[in-house]
Amino acid sequence: MAGSVIQQKLLPTLDFFLFEWLALDTLLERERFSDHSGETCRELLAAASEVAAEVFEPANRISDREEPSIDGDGEVVLPESTHQAWHAYRSLGIMGASHDDEHGGLQLPRLVDMAARVVFSASGPNVAPILLTESNAALILQHGSDEQRRVFALPQLEARWSGTMAMSESQAGSSLADILTRATPDGEGFELDPLGPRYRIIGDKMWISAAEHTLTENIVHLVLAKIPQPDGMVSADTAALSLFIVPKFMVGPSTELLEHNDVRLIGLNHKLGNRGIPNTALSFGGTAQNPRGAVGYLVGEPGQGLAQMFHMMNAARTEIGLLAASIGFAGFAVSLDYAKWRRQGRLRGVTSAEQVPIIEHADVKRMLLAQKSYAEGGIALSLYVAKLLDDQQTGSAEAASSAGALLDILTPVLKSWPSEWCLEGNSLAIQVMGGVGYTRDFPVEQYWRDQRLNMIHEGTHGVQAMDLLGRKVRQNGGQSLAELGAKIARTVLAGNEADFENESDALASAWESVVRAANHAWESGDPRDALANATPFLQGFGHVVIAWIHLDLAIAARSSSHSESAGRLAATNYFFTYELPKVNAWLNVVENREKLCRDVDGWSL
Amino acid sequence: MAGSVIQQKLLPTLDFFLFEWLALDTLLERERFSDHSGETCRELLAAASEVAAEVFEPANRISDREEPSIDGDGEVVLPESTHQAWHAYRSLGIMGASHDDEHGGLQLPRLVDMAARVVFSASGPNVAPILLTESNAALILQHGSDEQRRVFALPQLEARWSGTMAMSESQAGSSLADILTRATPDGEGFELDPLGPRYRIIGDKMWISAAEHTLTENIVHLVLAKIPQPDGMVSADTAALSLFIVPKFMVGPSTELLEHNDVRLIGLNHKLGNRGIPNTALSFGGTAQNPRGAVGYLVGEPGQGLAQMFHMMNAARTEIGLLAASIGFAGFAVSLDYAKWRRQGRLRGVTSAEQVPIIEHADVKRMLLAQKSYAEGGIALSLYVAKLLDDQQTGSAEAASSAGALLDILTPVLKSWPSEWCLEGNSLAIQVMGGVGYTRDFPVEQYWRDQRLNMIHEGTHGVQAMDLLGRKVRQNGGQSLAELGAKIARTVLAGNEADFENESDALASAWESVVRAANHAWESGDPRDALANATPFLQGFGHVVIAWIHLDLAIAARSSSHSESAGRLAATNYFFTYELPKVNAWLNVVENREKLCRDVDGWSL
Repeated sequence: MAGSVIQQKLLPTLDFFLFEWLALDTLLERERFSDHSGETCRELLAAASEVAAEVFEPANRISDREEPSIDGDGEVVLPESTHQAWHAYRSLGIMGASHDDEHGGLQLPRLVDMAARVVFSASGPNVAPILLTESNAALILQHGSDEQRRVFALPQLEARWSGTMAMSESQAGSSLADILTRATPDGEGFELDPLGPRYRIIGDKMWISAAEHTLTENIVHLVLAKIPQPDGMVSADTAALSLFIVPKFMVGPSTELLEHNDVRLIGLNHKLGNRGIPNTALSFGGTAQNPRGAVGYLVGEPGQGLAQMFHMMNAARTEIGLLAASIGFAGFAVSLDYAKWRRQGRLRGVTSAEQVPIIEHADVKRMLLAQKSYAEGGIALSLYVAKLLDDQQTGSAEAASSAGALLDILTPVLKSWPSEWCLEGNSLAIQVMGGVGYTRDFPVEQYWRDQRLNMIHEGTHGVQAMDLLGRKVRQNGGQSLAELGAKIARTVLAGNEADFENESDALASAWESVVRAANHAWESGDPRDALANATPFLQGFGHVVIAWIHLDLAIAARSSSHSESAGRLAATNYFFTYELPKVNAWLNVVENREKLCRDVDGWSL
Repeated sequence: MAGSVIQQKLLPTLDFFLFEWLALDTLLERERFSDHSGETCRELLAAASEVAAEVFEPANRISDREEPSIDGDGEVVLPESTHQAWHAYRSLGIMGASHDDEHGGLQLPRLVDMAARVVFSASGPNVAPILLTESNAALILQHGSDEQRRVFALPQLEARWSGTMAMSESQAGSSLADILTRATPDGEGFELDPLGPRYRIIGDKMWISAAEHTLTENIVHLVLAKIPQPDGMVSADTAALSLFIVPKFMVGPSTELLEHNDVRLIGLNHKLGNRGIPNTALSFGGTAQNPRGAVGYLVGEPGQGLAQMFHMMNAARTEIGLLAASIGFAGFAVSLDYAKWRRQGRLRGVTSAEQVPIIEHADVKRMLLAQKSYAEGGIALSLYVAKLLDDQQTGSAEAASSAGALLDILTPVLKSWPSEWCLEGNSLAIQVMGGVGYTRDFPVEQYWRDQRLNMIHEGTHGVQAMDLLGRKVRQNGGQSLAELGAKIARTVLAGNEADFENESDALASAWESVVRAANHAWESGDPRDALANATPFLQGFGHVVIAWIHLDLAIAARSSSHSESAGRLAATNYFFTYELPKVNAWLNVVENREKLCRDVDGWSL
């Protein structure tokens, strides 16, 4: 781990979150986790940290300079260091960390699994399609047949194969109802294939991450397509979407690879950042050589595609939040380190021959505190959500139900908040380092570029906002909102008892503003009124959720002698003093059902 | 101008600012401008726009991909398109647009000169060291001897030579007192050189923009260095700084080029953006071959270096604001255009087979309005400042004095506000365009990268904040603050009369908050108390200034039938509804003299 300022800072931070805040030791008492102890979890994180520092960190930089390219055989070429990173990761055997023993998993809590992903994401966000592979496998495990699980999911949990999610088309990005890719039954007896009802898929997909490479032997595409009605028509409706497993190479019963399926690479996108992960356009069948299309196996029932894909999409959204927070952390750690050794200027009232380390300047400390509160707030929320996933799976019936309601409402926040604020944090990392930060001699400019993707993929900010204000705050009679309100009230109470009266008052009042804004937004009953300001609502809501997380963290820190406690308290202080007061500016337009953006004639701008 | 959506949108925008708002026609009645009319100014801008669209716009993209490199002869190689852009610019003959006839200038108002620079900056921010050359010449015209003017300034106003500003050293970025470069008298009779007292300069400088290239025949470096005291010591004090003209090639009396001066390129920086302009490290003398140093001619008196350099630095800061706003405008125009033809999704309550242009969506309109209010607010402030420069030069004594006071306080705002908010705007341009905006197929990702520099160079955000709260609001008994307050009060009054009561009230109240915050910040008399929150003060102050500009613009728009009026009113509405309410969160910490960032132990974070 020599020289990784990221990992040196990250491990104690995670340690505080897991053991001082989220009571991992107690969680490990559940039967499912009986093979594990706090100590083995610490060892796993330390091992992950070692690989991340030694292999992922250099690979991440190299993958930015040596972009994916297509060689003469049409194969996507990635740097050797990326292959090394994938193989080092695979050797750790933790792709299925949270999965069942019987599927080759380790039956670790999701909480520990996600902490390990933070470790990899902070050092090498660009080098491995980990998240897509695990969540692709998880989808198949949940919705697929036994044979689909065995053949398509388990090799992914070994990291022997990898997975993708193929949804978007050029005319259908956010608007999935407009998907044109079609799936037609593959002849007589198509429904009897042991791998599932066999279809032929014809269509072009784009924006698919990691859809072509040689890191793994095979790639499992999960493809959204429409099965035409008997008259040959397809409806422009998400209810028409079905989900298909489309492997790059056809597969025999012992998962041996057969001929290449009719899945062809159309091209690679050249991106601002996130360059290590090839982003592709794929063509499924429909060529002169193969007019019948690519072979795809239906998952579950026709018409269930979007609901099934949401399983993977929710996982992806959770992980984007985690990824964004991790990249934010990387920038924080690197600029923090720089601020400790770079000398510039002197303090007021102090005359010294030597300049002081810039960490002595108030404005630099402000920028570091901001980064810390954004990145660690985001990581903390990610881990909180991971623990909810554990509660959903292994908690009491009551805890599981509460966790489900909270996951519904927190997912759009976790997807969006770190994406927006850790981008600001990554910008501040550049700012702390000044001109040096603007050069490619240091990684902070790459972090900022990589980060910029996270507000876009897996549902843009605007899409998350519509999900939050349009669905999540209202669903089940507002159950999710009430459940979150109850959690916040509990923290407010604990804060009052732990000498955080000011913060508790501020949080309680901010939460009231959120609820009031949501209610007023929907007062007219017209979704156009409410949703015209969905994004400001998402922003205000997100800041209040993170304030809650920070207060909860500070309560844990106050009674802890952990090395991270002082920093935790400072970050909470910063967030309540400098950040939470921003909330009203966002929520007021929601509460007032401000109509400007709805009514203004865009063509006049 | 075929295909430049930037210029097609920009020309009418500038037209509104110049003629409907800033009364250029009236300004042109001043004697200095008697050769010009509104019509000739429009023609000049149209000609500039043509060159910007046809030459600067493609060169800007190419210069990002083909970074400056050093060839076998040690020369910096720039793309051919950059040379074409410079020559096209030079052919227009407008480098000295605002300068005196006798210096080869056009005696146009600064207002028109700056509008033309917006035109070039919006299409090609990366391709030409225009601003440094003009302000280098202007410094020499103001502080140099007659002979220095003739030999070093006039060729720059022809764009035959170009200029730089060489201040920073590796140990002295923001901290200019720590400069180590030395200047010693160049032997017997050194003070009798016709080009000025001749010194030998020894030292290394870095972060110098456009310090080596072959766009021009010669390059005039303005170098800050210290003349040692008789005992050979130099004091660590900005009062020890003197300014020297150090040409790349030595120059004879007819400005003919002689031998290469001992100025050598050490290396080029590899940057996140702004790649078209080579950013260099230079070594001045002190080599084995030339131990005596590079020849430099003293400007004015010893010890005046920093004050003289501030002439150029203030000009540069003004232009960074203009540049930032222009890049913001480019992103706005490109994403606006995209939003008009890209179809995705449908409006609520409307069932149509065809998807709608995304400009119909409220959230897209919100992002366009934000960009418009940032970019056009920044351009409007730039032009307002340009008009103040005209008033300083050609207005009544009273107007000149008022303009000077306003320039002092508005310069840090103009430097910082567009740098911060047009970065956000450029990010929103990417967001409007989604995944496509994240690829290098469109220019918006480049704009965002290019823009990121502007919060750093020519004085970081933190430096501007210290200048504003530490000096400008307090200087001359608060004269500048009072002068700005009077201007704002006038707009508030006019707003009330023009049916903008709500906006007028909000602006008046926001201004009161600014003044209150400034007063409370200094109440303890301890600069550490006040300046711990200098950056939030700068942010709040900036938003209030831009709100004032927007209200003033809206008043002009309400009574105008100009094509841009409807958009103007919408942008003002947006800024007052969504942006101005953010101010209190920044100003409250200032008013409370919040001590967190001052007192927190940075090493604990």
